[in-house]
Amino acid sequence: MTERSEESSPSAAGSLPSIDLNADMGEGFGPWVMGDDEAMFALVSSANVACGGHASDPDTMFRTLSLARQHKVVTGAHPSYPDKEGFGRRRMPHRPDEIERFVAAQVGALMAIGALVGQPVAYVKPHGALGNVATVEKPVAAAIVAAVRAVDPDLAMLAISGTMLEQVARDSGMQVFSEIFADRGYTAAGNLVPRSEPGALIHDGAFAARRIVAFLESGMMPTVSHEPVALEAHSICVHGDSPDAVAMARTVRDELTERGFAIAPFLPYR
Amino acid sequence: MTERSEESSPSAAGSLPSIDLNADMGEGFGPWVMGDDEAMFALVSSANVACGGHASDPDTMFRTLSLARQHKVVTGAHPSYPDKEGFGRRRMPHRPDEIERFVAAQVGALMAIGALVGQPVAYVKPHGALGNVATVEKPVAAAIVAAVRAVDPDLAMLAISGTMLEQVARDSGMQVFSEIFADRGYTAAGNLVPRSEPGALIHDGAFAARRIVAFLESGMMPTVSHEPVALEAHSICVHGDSPDAVAMARTVRDELTERGFAIAPFLPYR
Amino acid sequence: MTERSEESSPSAAGSLPSIDLNADMGEGFGPWVMGDDEAMFALVSSANVACGGHASDPDTMFRTLSLARQHKVVTGAHPSYPDKEGFGRRRMPHRPDEIERFVAAQVGALMAIGALVGQPVAYVKPHGALGNVATVEKPVAAAIVAAVRAVDPDLAMLAISGTMLEQVARDSGMQVFSEIFADRGYTAAGNLVPRSEPGALIHDGAFAARRIVAFLESGMMPTVSHEPVALEAHSICVHGDSPDAVAMARTVRDELTERGFAIAPFLPYR
Amino acid sequence: MTERSEESSPSAAGSLPSIDLNADMGEGFGPWVMGDDEAMFALVSSANVACGGHASDPDTMFRTLSLARQHKVVTGAHPSYPDKEGFGRRRMPHRPDEIERFVAAQVGALMAIGALVGQPVAYVKPHGALGNVATVEKPVAAAIVAAVRAVDPDLAMLAISGTMLEQVARDSGMQVFSEIFADRGYTAAGNLVPRSEPGALIHDGAFAARRIVAFLESGMMPTVSHEPVALEAHSICVHGDSPDAVAMARTVRDELTERGFAIAPFLPYR
Repeated sequence: MTERSEESSPSAAGSLPSIDLNADMGEGFGPWVMGDDEAMFALVSSANVACGGHASDPDTMFRTLSLARQHKVVTGAHPSYPDKEGFGRRRMPHRPDEIERFVAAQVGALMAIGALVGQPVAYVKPHGALGNVATVEKPVAAAIVAAVRAVDPDLAMLAISGTMLEQVARDSGMQVFSEIFADRGYTAAGNLVPRSEPGALIHDGAFAARRIVAFLESGMMPTVSHEPVALEAHSICVHGDSPDAVAMARTVRDELTERGFAIAPFLPYR
Repeated sequence: MTERSEESSPSAAGSLPSIDLNADMGEGFGPWVMGDDEAMFALVSSANVACGGHASDPDTMFRTLSLARQHKVVTGAHPSYPDKEGFGRRRMPHRPDEIERFVAAQVGALMAIGALVGQPVAYVKPHGALGNVATVEKPVAAAIVAAVRAVDPDLAMLAISGTMLEQVARDSGMQVFSEIFADRGYTAAGNLVPRSEPGALIHDGAFAARRIVAFLESGMMPTVSHEPVALEAHSICVHGDSPDAVAMARTVRDELTERGFAIAPFLPYR
Repeated sequence: MTERSEESSPSAAGSLPSIDLNADMGEGFGPWVMGDDEAMFALVSSANVACGGHASDPDTMFRTLSLARQHKVVTGAHPSYPDKEGFGRRRMPHRPDEIERFVAAQVGALMAIGALVGQPVAYVKPHGALGNVATVEKPVAAAIVAAVRAVDPDLAMLAISGTMLEQVARDSGMQVFSEIFADRGYTAAGNLVPRSEPGALIHDGAFAARRIVAFLESGMMPTVSHEPVALEAHSICVHGDSPDAVAMARTVRDELTERGFAIAPFLPYR
Repeated sequence: MTERSEESSPSAAGSLPSIDLNADMGEGFGPWVMGDDEAMFALVSSANVACGGHASDPDTMFRTLSLARQHKVVTGAHPSYPDKEGFGRRRMPHRPDEIERFVAAQVGALMAIGALVGQPVAYVKPHGALGNVATVEKPVAAAIVAAVRAVDPDLAMLAISGTMLEQVARDSGMQVFSEIFADRGYTAAGNLVPRSEPGALIHDGAFAARRIVAFLESGMMPTVSHEPVALEAHSICVHGDSPDAVAMARTVRDELTERGFAIAPFLPYR
């Protein structure tokens, strides 16, 4: 059984076990779109919303948060290295103090658009290369946490269990939730299989869904070495920008609901 | 006697009459600077801080708000059409709904950096072409006011007395302060002399200072037609980006203090 | 019978009548794509390639010109107001001298990437709002023509017959080709039906194709008032960014080839 | 005696020995300026002109090349990592193929503006971090050289003697000129003293000038370890963006002309 937020359970005794599905949303820019946000918002319970770093602009943020509001999906900020051409996937040369400032500015911009829409920002999940660096480098994790804490001490962090970011966020007093990935293979050590190795990416939605169900029922995630590993997760990331993201998300969601899991956010929708 | 904020008066009975001096600050971008902010912060009581529209970036905002904090200068957001190449001086083709969104995003970004610095954003003054359009076009004035109200209902507006922006802001329930310009000539109707006409720009600091003192002592501003006009002002804008801005600001400040006026912000420094 | 470039006819006596199909290509930016360029390059004979104004970046230009080379499609530069967020569809506040400079810079950048690829730039067609303004405002048309002439006097212009741009380009000594639109309705005066009126946009590919064939066979274009109008065209624009652009282009192409027209560029592929 | 371009010597027998002075120019962006280009153009014989990577835009390029034309100063392109916020001083994560494309696009844009102005681009000198990386990494040096060769095989390269860039450019068949720095200390091995060590930066113009004269008269450059080292140079870089750049350039120029050196470009002004 995975842990979950008490608040997200609609009722106490006899309620369904629940789990969150999260995806990256609002990753267009100006006239360009990325993925099918309308379809995805109908499937997830939390959305990581681009805030001008790797993607988005004030109008795109507005449209995305409006869709979230319509679907009653909880929204988090998805800050990134300022790198639209590289979609935030490249490590940029910014120092921790610079990271602290651009994370604050991006989260602040999204919160302001959220205030316009009436859709609050509830958590933060760093995107792409920034997120990857923050899993292992303490000064970067600390810069992100400091920025978020300063901007709004009520913001939660969505991180990967066992990473530097999770630890620094938790030590700061933040509420931290952890995620696993529906479409990524795991090693027996509980890490993601590197993208260059076999089993890194799962394209078969049914296989991905069965694996997630197995994990949710046992707390043990199947791995590429067939020995399951104990993981912790409040949320399952179903991504957002791969061509078959919607189909994968739908298959995972359907399998989960069929097996008796409610799809519910790790933080209450307000 | 000009009106002024009660809160800005250091003491009640027998206190000096006071007036605010404001200037545009933080108008650099990346490696580029505009004006001498360090010198200017020592002279003004309020600073309109660029927030990524016509100028600035997260690091520049951070440095600017840090200087403000050091000098205990009250700070406002200075949102603009997104147009760094044109420094926000060109009217851009954005619709009111788009203006509402970029104003919100810019103000939100600056507030977030302010939270990092520990220097709050207390008011908003639109920059350049956006400010000009808002003096006369109600949908644009309303978009700016709606954005600011949504982001933080405690923000005040700094506007020109008698403009559409001032009226819309006041009607919305915002606290509104008005400004006059130290280096601009006025017509008998109380408007700025157009830049294309003689007397539009005042380059002589001593003359500018005497004119401001005359206004503060009588409530009547000298005009190009020599007939003074009644104006209302809580603040005197001494600009920030002209080459002699610092000298002009210093002359005005010295003249005012010599004549018994205290330089104090229209909102209390917190 | 429409006019066409002698050079584009593969053989002299007894050769098929030929016509060019052009479309806007390379309109992605960084990670974002717009339309299905791979499919479109198989259908057209000329491609208007975005060069950093409304879309594109050096890598996107490189990929697009490489596709053109692979398909032996003639390429033109597609300069625009610098406005990625608005996709070049908004009139921006640039003066003619500024337009001259950004058009030169954009065309020069694309030509340089073309030199890397080994795919030359043969003509210029202004994009979106810039193209619209140039149809009626002489200073803007003249700025575009002056920029193109300075950068490379061998570049041709692709324009709409009867417009200011066509006239200014022709008067400058440039080689000028004219285009009509497969998916736009025409008035009896030979103008495009405004987008706000019925008949402006044609979504039925078969209808569009029959209309083009009628025009090519008679030199008279069917109009919304049913009275055909004489037009001149060396090329048919099949657009590039609407969702059904590829299907429309394929239907038009198939109908043309079935009726005995060869699809050939208005300038020879080199 | 330093080597120099035959073409730059105004007369053959009995002519003055000549040397080029180069500086970085046109490093403003939109409303922002960097350094005093007007003063600098009166002092140098060659100008490295920013072309949109670390600085500049079409209007700034136009103004800069117009100044160069007025002063009959030879101009080179000064391409950079696309990084205005970092002024091109940070190593960015671009691969060699991406570098090749952005260098081509930047050089092509400047050449096109040069065609408008009537001021040709004669050489290329990579800026900042891109230049530094190219001194040691062959794939980066090769990417720059390939881009320049493709865009215009007549362009020369301005490089530091003994670097990878100089070698790759020379091997490609390009005409290569080498430079030394007026305001940087050298080690006995002929390298620049790292900025973190004493003697790296020379602020005393008279000292810098005497050192350059000593080098030009002997071919041996004084070093921080007092043992002079043999260097090769066709040009002396006097920089452009430090506050005392103009004074330093003027002192060096005056000292050189007093000692009988003509200031002349390494390539003829056309």
